[in-house]
Amino acid sequence: MSDSVKYLLGEQDIPKSWYNINADLPVPLPPVLHPGTLQPIGPADLAPIFPMAVIMQEVSVEREIEIPEPVRAVYRQWRPSPLYRARRLEQALGTPARIYYKYEGVSPAGSHKPNTAIPQAFYNKEEGVKRIATETGAGQWGSSLALAGAFFGLEIDVFMVKVSFQQKPYRRAFMETFGARCIASPSDTTEAGRAILAQNPNSTGSLGIAISEAVEMAARRDDTKYALGSVLNHVLLHQTVIGLEAQKQMEMAGDYPDMVIGCTGGGSNFAGIAFPFLGERLREGRNTEFVAVEPSACPTLTKGLFAYDFGDTAHLTPLVKMYTLGSGFVPPGFHAGGLRYHGMAPQISHLAALGYIKPRSYHQTECFAAGVQFARAEGIIPAPEANHAVKATIDEALKCKEEGVSKALLFNLCGHGHFDMQAYSDYVAGKLVDQAYDESEVAMALAGLPSVG
Amino acid sequence: MSDSVKYLLGEQDIPKSWYNINADLPVPLPPVLHPGTLQPIGPADLAPIFPMAVIMQEVSVEREIEIPEPVRAVYRQWRPSPLYRARRLEQALGTPARIYYKYEGVSPAGSHKPNTAIPQAFYNKEEGVKRIATETGAGQWGSSLALAGAFFGLEIDVFMVKVSFQQKPYRRAFMETFGARCIASPSDTTEAGRAILAQNPNSTGSLGIAISEAVEMAARRDDTKYALGSVLNHVLLHQTVIGLEAQKQMEMAGDYPDMVIGCTGGGSNFAGIAFPFLGERLREGRNTEFVAVEPSACPTLTKGLFAYDFGDTAHLTPLVKMYTLGSGFVPPGFHAGGLRYHGMAPQISHLAALGYIKPRSYHQTECFAAGVQFARAEGIIPAPEANHAVKATIDEALKCKEEGVSKALLFNLCGHGHFDMQAYSDYVAGKLVDQAYDESEVAMALAGLPSVG
Repeated sequence: MSDSVKYLLGEQDIPKSWYNINADLPVPLPPVLHPGTLQPIGPADLAPIFPMAVIMQEVSVEREIEIPEPVRAVYRQWRPSPLYRARRLEQALGTPARIYYKYEGVSPAGSHKPNTAIPQAFYNKEEGVKRIATETGAGQWGSSLALAGAFFGLEIDVFMVKVSFQQKPYRRAFMETFGARCIASPSDTTEAGRAILAQNPNSTGSLGIAISEAVEMAARRDDTKYALGSVLNHVLLHQTVIGLEAQKQMEMAGDYPDMVIGCTGGGSNFAGIAFPFLGERLREGRNTEFVAVEPSACPTLTKGLFAYDFGDTAHLTPLVKMYTLGSGFVPPGFHAGGLRYHGMAPQISHLAALGYIKPRSYHQTECFAAGVQFARAEGIIPAPEANHAVKATIDEALKCKEEGVSKALLFNLCGHGHFDMQAYSDYVAGKLVDQAYDESEVAMALAGLPSVG
Repeated sequence: MSDSVKYLLGEQDIPKSWYNINADLPVPLPPVLHPGTLQPIGPADLAPIFPMAVIMQEVSVEREIEIPEPVRAVYRQWRPSPLYRARRLEQALGTPARIYYKYEGVSPAGSHKPNTAIPQAFYNKEEGVKRIATETGAGQWGSSLALAGAFFGLEIDVFMVKVSFQQKPYRRAFMETFGARCIASPSDTTEAGRAILAQNPNSTGSLGIAISEAVEMAARRDDTKYALGSVLNHVLLHQTVIGLEAQKQMEMAGDYPDMVIGCTGGGSNFAGIAFPFLGERLREGRNTEFVAVEPSACPTLTKGLFAYDFGDTAHLTPLVKMYTLGSGFVPPGFHAGGLRYHGMAPQISHLAALGYIKPRSYHQTECFAAGVQFARAEGIIPAPEANHAVKATIDEALKCKEEGVSKALLFNLCGHGHFDMQAYSDYVAGKLVDQAYDESEVAMALAGLPSVG
């Protein structure tokens, strides 16, 4: 048995700044548009729902943005996270590839989400906000913001997609243990929720609906702001601690990735691992490849349109240019709930449209098979979302074996699967099925895209 | 907000030897007796169920026992585990106490159990064993041995107490993901199981019954051995990596514990954190206090007898002198399943009888209240077992506040509660109740103790 190798940094190696890829984009991002006027918006338009520090990060083109010391102090609880060389997996596959993974499941919420929940809570607290409203799908984000709320003394209201609220009572218990309020969405506490319920009392909800409810609550109350766990520039920015640490750890390993792999739902964990390396490619002309892996049942990057769309169902959010399946699209209820979003981060969409990021998609059963193989070799049960990255990595490693080449593959193991064991139970029992998305529903949702410019 | 401080060691600080407290006992342990003859047994008597390397550790009086390099190599995946100064909890309590905790939830199985599962699997593999049979209650131990089996290429059969098998399908899924077989106990695969089922077809099982089944399977098959996750000397020995690391980390902190606190079921996590410090007390005459915390519903140390008893229900195991509630006693079904054992490790029992370890007990609701308070301050949701240690620590910290003294309190946070969220859900909903043990059942079980000597 060969053994996994761990590359561990000291606390002094926690980055002092986040990396902002906007500084290195070969073409600037398309502007964000006002949902009413369809004209470019400025910081003031976002002030009702976000604290100003976050808004300024959203529009910044500075390459380095300082991480406040109180945020680094909380990061220190679990950061720097380990980077592993997966030697046991390499051996099991018989591959000449060098497989590395960064493990974000060491955070107290079990995923990468606290990397942005902590600074978002910090900035809100600094600006006197009392309460944050947000949405959550699988629960990783809601759990992380609940944790951050407990640390900074903020009330947290989480609108949880109803089907997940019902299927994942332990995620709800997690949030409530930290003192957060967890509301099944669509709910009767918002106009957006009541409108959906009036139309369909049995609605199981979607991220798009839950976002509408949370944004509405934030806009309506003076003491309340909104927080998003993915998609937006500032969220992706906060996640770059992952890749910045991984750069140092790859240096410790005396290696550099030929390919960086991450799963993509809204895009934050992928951006976290990839952007610091992608920035090096943009600045220094390296050949590193970047692979974004998404579920075949919600194929935003591989089958969506690159167009202006809303982030939510009720069309309360600004419009951004992104790969989208249409804000009216409700993906099937597969287990990787964190990847069930109709859109994709504008920065990732932009870089994919420019050819720097290569998307691919897999069905859930093959992803779980990869996850089980990974667990038996490396000891960690990945979150269903992360299994997509595992599957792509194993495929690439087997391709290396076929071709007799040794590539360095780096993927982000963005979280553990402790709250998703029902899915593994179904997989082990042979009950897991692949779900197809409804092509006509996507066509209809895309036909409904707003016509801009 | 003050911030938690993490004391992190490097890989070179993973201990090279385990610490064997048998070398420092002021009075030697009473002998282990054969279940048939009631005479002291020798290593050969244990050979049908344990590998010889483990048996020799069980009877060793050497102070330091070398950790094999392949075991250290696996430990490196998550060890050294962090030690934290719980400043946010101190602040929330307003206590002058210095609270430290060692966090074993960073292991891939989420608890301290892999510390012994890995070496036990290693020694079995070395001696040509193909399969290991074991029991599990809450599932922490079974999960850890499943993990170790996957790493070392051993088949693992886990007899899981039936009530837990039904209540904790995710623990079962965890074990099956690693390729282990998980059997509800009592089962019809063993004579011991069939005998219980004949008597009571609806038996919900107990650890004592599950041990009988696993021991019987190991004794019956030539290619199969048995492994225990607590109680025995060699298991406690393997867990001393916890305390040995904690000694170095307390040195980093420039502090030394006035009190070491751990929860006790079979005793392994308590011994892991406490024995290295207790050894220093025995050798150097320090004043450190040692507090073993158990559930009021299974009060082995606080209400049991110090007497010879069997480890299992079917009386297949040797007899050891220990605090016991009687091997016929079935504790109520409270949530801290890892503490539901009728006996206590002979080494801990012996040291408690000699006055070196002070036991105390708490009800589960007050323990969960402490766990929630801890989670909100420190970000980690403790396993229900660990909540007992948290409760005692908070009580001691509040006592320090009352008395205006600053003590250094060190406790072992032996695992996280990710697989126990139903309990937190019940607690948050106000549905958790305290259960009393049946005093007449204990009296009857104690009356049935074998008469020895």
